[in-house]
Amino acid sequence: MNQVYIGVDVGGTTVKVGVFTPAGEILEKWEVPTRTEQNGVHILPDVATSVQAHTKPDWQVLAVGIGVPGPVTAEGRVLGCVNLGWGEFALTDRAATLFGVPAVAGNDANLAALGEQWLGAGHGVQDLVMVTLGTGVGGGIVSNGKMLVGHNGSGGEIGHIPVNPQETLRCNCGQCGCLEQYASATGMVRVAKAMLTACDTPSSLREGELTARALFDSAKAGDALANEIVDVVCGYLGLGLGTLGSVVDPALFLVGGGVAKAGQIILDRLLPSYQKHVFHSARNAQFALATLGNDAGICGAAKLAMDLVPA
Amino acid sequence: MNQVYIGVDVGGTTVKVGVFTPAGEILEKWEVPTRTEQNGVHILPDVATSVQAHTKPDWQVLAVGIGVPGPVTAEGRVLGCVNLGWGEFALTDRAATLFGVPAVAGNDANLAALGEQWLGAGHGVQDLVMVTLGTGVGGGIVSNGKMLVGHNGSGGEIGHIPVNPQETLRCNCGQCGCLEQYASATGMVRVAKAMLTACDTPSSLREGELTARALFDSAKAGDALANEIVDVVCGYLGLGLGTLGSVVDPALFLVGGGVAKAGQIILDRLLPSYQKHVFHSARNAQFALATLGNDAGICGAAKLAMDLVPA
Repeated sequence: MNQVYIGVDVGGTTVKVGVFTPAGEILEKWEVPTRTEQNGVHILPDVATSVQAHTKPDWQVLAVGIGVPGPVTAEGRVLGCVNLGWGEFALTDRAATLFGVPAVAGNDANLAALGEQWLGAGHGVQDLVMVTLGTGVGGGIVSNGKMLVGHNGSGGEIGHIPVNPQETLRCNCGQCGCLEQYASATGMVRVAKAMLTACDTPSSLREGELTARALFDSAKAGDALANEIVDVVCGYLGLGLGTLGSVVDPALFLVGGGVAKAGQIILDRLLPSYQKHVFHSARNAQFALATLGNDAGICGAAKLAMDLVPA
Repeated sequence: MNQVYIGVDVGGTTVKVGVFTPAGEILEKWEVPTRTEQNGVHILPDVATSVQAHTKPDWQVLAVGIGVPGPVTAEGRVLGCVNLGWGEFALTDRAATLFGVPAVAGNDANLAALGEQWLGAGHGVQDLVMVTLGTGVGGGIVSNGKMLVGHNGSGGEIGHIPVNPQETLRCNCGQCGCLEQYASATGMVRVAKAMLTACDTPSSLREGELTARALFDSAKAGDALANEIVDVVCGYLGLGLGTLGSVVDPALFLVGGGVAKAGQIILDRLLPSYQKHVFHSARNAQFALATLGNDAGICGAAKLAMDLVPA
């Protein structure tokens, strides 16, 4: 019999599932559509059925880990998950019944950090922070090899670190001046639009669709205004990560998410701001791009399962 | 035989020592002068000798925990401690040899948080933050019952969270606008002086020595300007703790240190600012005054020793 762990990452449109050996090898990987109707009551049974169908006779499933796009407490309680239609319930209890093995759960951004720490760019690093730059800014903190979960399952919510008290526009969260307002894909485009409107400087950004990708492409091609904008948004990112670095003292920051496809330029441009603002003890923290992409969540979920039931 | 733990808290002038039962009862407590000469080479041997002299025949010492006013890594390595004359060395290795039992070590502010979590105002709370308002602003984070140590032993350094980008005066750390510049005893007096100088409003603060204590006493007595000043400094404190709360998501904040002797007024005045700035998931975190005073460090050190060698 081969001992395996199931890693599940529940997203708004698909659920990713992976089967892992204790050594971190992925034996199989597939997706299941997320049925959000009837308050998402089908989601977990659908996954359990699908896992059952994929299970090989020689697999001994030791535990299942489940990542969720919302807060999950250390006891495995979901506190509501709007995307999925879920309210508050004991996710791990329900999953253990459905899957017939011990179950554990966590927030997807936190699990992505744990996944990178197990099998990705943070391999073997005990203290790291992962920041995910997408539509929003998500994050996960791993301290001494463990996820920082928080009392309400909202540990690692780094998108709402205040970075600009002068801001008058409101973030989705209701505050003004959150990191997410500058360093998410949406935020970068907003800043770029404002800076383009405020001047007449010629720029390739004035043609075509303005996206985070176009911004970084223009900057790499030498466009002066694009480079100014990149310095502004990466400056806020460096300030936010500096605040976090002072408090959490990680060895490594990983940057992932769609915006991170721009590559090394993000790390190069945020570093001066980070080093300017961080408390000296964390000034030498390293920066790298995340490497697991969309698999980070299932990797972290499987690792959490392995921490629950060691092989 | 009675199983006991030794908790040691090394300060710049005295070393506090306590002998604890596994249930958290303090059997004995005393102090040893801190001899900082010759790069502090006598400090640990002095403590070991003193513990030896105090040891009762019926004690079975299971482990010793040591708190240090500087960064200590998870592996028990001191990375330099200016107050004591210490450079970098493996503190736990040396202590284990001197005391003849397993040893563990941590930063004193982090251990104070752990101590309050074990025997003080945070009893039984798995996720808490302790902020110590003294000459500086120190802090400790306990997440899922464990101290957040950090890669360089500087986890929980909350005094250098940026709270005012407009500040032009430099903090001791070299940055401008750190929490410590407003919420430490020194910072509060500085803000008070500036606000007194900037206006002619009559205030009892214009007579006598201006201290953090005098500031809070005047505010409690109804002095209008003192109340304005208290709102300013507690506003910054609430903002800093809000930033921290968003990221760490604690159930409880504890406020300790000399300034906290002012009492409930600090909590009452920082709360509106905290609730205004924190991410909504941590908005209902509780606030309380720390209760262990100067014993918090030895309590946390003993708890760390107990986590190392359970009774």
